[in-house]
Amino acid sequence: MFKKIESQSKNTEINLDEVLDSLKYNEQGLVPCIAQQSGTGEVLMMAWMNRDALDETLKTGRVCYWSRSRSKLWRKGESSGQVQMLKQLKIDCDGDTLLAIVDQTGPACHTGRRHCFYLEVTGSVVKVTGDVLIDPADLYKS
Amino acid sequence: MFKKIESQSKNTEINLDEVLDSLKYNEQGLVPCIAQQSGTGEVLMMAWMNRDALDETLKTGRVCYWSRSRSKLWRKGESSGQVQMLKQLKIDCDGDTLLAIVDQTGPACHTGRRHCFYLEVTGSVVKVTGDVLIDPADLYKS
Repeated sequence: MFKKIESQSKNTEINLDEVLDSLKYNEQGLVPCIAQQSGTGEVLMMAWMNRDALDETLKTGRVCYWSRSRSKLWRKGESSGQVQMLKQLKIDCDGDTLLAIVDQTGPACHTGRRHCFYLEVTGSVVKVTGDVLIDPADLYKS
Repeated sequence: MFKKIESQSKNTEINLDEVLDSLKYNEQGLVPCIAQQSGTGEVLMMAWMNRDALDETLKTGRVCYWSRSRSKLWRKGESSGQVQMLKQLKIDCDGDTLLAIVDQTGPACHTGRRHCFYLEVTGSVVKVTGDVLIDPADLYKS
């Protein structure tokens, strides 16, 4: 399906369910989803979605991933309160990656930092960057 | 290693090789890498790197991925001429995703569009967006 779409002209519309059915889910039935903050363009995190997570996200407008460590749906912010609301969902050219444009409340990262990409390569070292906005002990105290 | 780093204070430095050795490569020895255009914040694409691709990217400053379809190193732009130069490499909190801040020449997408995320979910349809900057027939004619 995605090969065929490549040459379609701008504004062509394809049925959503057909596209979602055709995504290239991996052996675990998952596709990676990048979360980017609306407006600022900040890349917040990357996590995984299965078809159920995707359906729920589109239905509720609140981003829901599949937690690979807990093997269950993970409604972002369900324990930390730092929810992610969906503004727009984009799919890449070969249907194997999603880009969610979101509105993220507070820190997206479980470490209490705004985003997960706080380790920066600088020469022969990796430097910790990013301020801890909320102590994880407070984020997950409930 | 990444669990330990979480609580380290800002500007802490960790040896690069130790970090790269500790990345959570999947069963194929790969980690996903998001490419984001420097300055504009545009998310261009997501592809995969193995340790060799990562080493080469850091050494040469030109982004090199692992092509899963061709099972070989893929120096972005080697056939299309649309190269990706590395400005900065970031690693996420649990060491399983990379974020490359790049300077992309022309279209990043093999369809000739600037980025790969040109399919947008709108209600019950997926709409094709994004202009084809260079006809793929011209991009890959050599």
